[in-house]
Amino acid sequence: MRELGRDPATAQEPGPMGGSAMKSYTTYITFNTTKRQEIIDITDQLEEFLRERPVEEGLMLVSAMHITASVFVNDHEPGLWQDIQDWLEGVVAPWDHHPACKDDYLHNQTGEDNGAAHLRSLAVGHQVLVPITNGRMDLGPWQRVFYGEWDGRRPKRVVVKIIGE
Amino acid sequence: MRELGRDPATAQEPGPMGGSAMKSYTTYITFNTTKRQEIIDITDQLEEFLRERPVEEGLMLVSAMHITASVFVNDHEPGLWQDIQDWLEGVVAPWDHHPACKDDYLHNQTGEDNGAAHLRSLAVGHQVLVPITNGRMDLGPWQRVFYGEWDGRRPKRVVVKIIGE
Amino acid sequence: MRELGRDPATAQEPGPMGGSAMKSYTTYITFNTTKRQEIIDITDQLEEFLRERPVEEGLMLVSAMHITASVFVNDHEPGLWQDIQDWLEGVVAPWDHHPACKDDYLHNQTGEDNGAAHLRSLAVGHQVLVPITNGRMDLGPWQRVFYGEWDGRRPKRVVVKIIGE
Repeated sequence: MRELGRDPATAQEPGPMGGSAMKSYTTYITFNTTKRQEIIDITDQLEEFLRERPVEEGLMLVSAMHITASVFVNDHEPGLWQDIQDWLEGVVAPWDHHPACKDDYLHNQTGEDNGAAHLRSLAVGHQVLVPITNGRMDLGPWQRVFYGEWDGRRPKRVVVKIIGE
Repeated sequence: MRELGRDPATAQEPGPMGGSAMKSYTTYITFNTTKRQEIIDITDQLEEFLRERPVEEGLMLVSAMHITASVFVNDHEPGLWQDIQDWLEGVVAPWDHHPACKDDYLHNQTGEDNGAAHLRSLAVGHQVLVPITNGRMDLGPWQRVFYGEWDGRRPKRVVVKIIGE
Repeated sequence: MRELGRDPATAQEPGPMGGSAMKSYTTYITFNTTKRQEIIDITDQLEEFLRERPVEEGLMLVSAMHITASVFVNDHEPGLWQDIQDWLEGVVAPWDHHPACKDDYLHNQTGEDNGAAHLRSLAVGHQVLVPITNGRMDLGPWQRVFYGEWDGRRPKRVVVKIIGE
């Protein structure tokens, strides 16, 4: 009913990097959004970092250092970004009441007001891993990497770490 | 009230791979489903790849190269697979209207019809990392790796990259 | 409208670990909760493991070995932990009926009763990757690592694997 197998046309197997030493590079990207919630395409910055610190084969971790933000892979399409934000507000975690009831988040009784942003970070995730193949970010044709700010207007950071050969 | 600690019976610590060189292997798995939405167990193919390209200790990244698909770890049980698809359709992101309202996805006003599949990919995630220990995929007894197709009937790919020793 | 760039103050780039060999360490953490659902901070145990098996630059995978549990990064705040559990029960996957209807989970017709816990694991995710920089877990100031038990009262395990230099 369906084809399923290794794709011969694209089975670029770089082969064993026998004898190679491991390299590791780290940088941090900072954000300070003017809006409370914002989706920012960071793919170009990640590519720039990989050009500066070339690795042929490896993994690039891109991980938000905050618990009210996300890093995710999806489409560079502004309508979709609005769909995502409407979904977070209307379904996942409304800002002004817990989605399971009409009461406030318990977290917001501690002096915070961002309980919703914590659940949004949890639902979308806070990190992605980009494979690096033949010196390039090995993404699909439509895949881009995004920072999702769910409680902005203050400095936030993303750590980017490459390990590989 | 609860036990919490390192499990002595299973604390197989392979120890430092002092002096070992890093290896890296990459392959791609292709899918072309006849159904729009489908869940496919790819664990056997991943094990086969690891047998072909043996690594004793490391990580295997399994990552969808599309933004309307997922890779996840769960149970090999067809009832559950239907539960997941009912949940994606009935709760996370109905195909024919945005879950926060009765209107269509903004993304679908760009000529696409798969806004729901983008949100499904975001909710479930698009990648997993399988630890490799003593030359084997170090999964729990019930853990299997799945490809989740949320907008099928066209060629899709998953990249699989092993790094380790 | 927003600042966006590399943070010069924190751009600690450890530089190429040229000529370094890869190290790999693995351990397992066991849980046996008295409650069906529980959120447990495991950050201290992870730090202890890194002290025992020092790595300067690398990645630490923390991955649940069960399909009714999660590992995630969020805040050490008990009100939030209750918010998360209320969200899982009230929005994501109620224990006693599928959230898309009032019927039971199909999975629960196989003799199981934990269909909800499978969906909870899927929504929150079952693993995180902690970057290691300068010998430390490179987490943000409020980030802690949690084990989320969604179907407890039996032994469960988390695998922890460090690879790096």
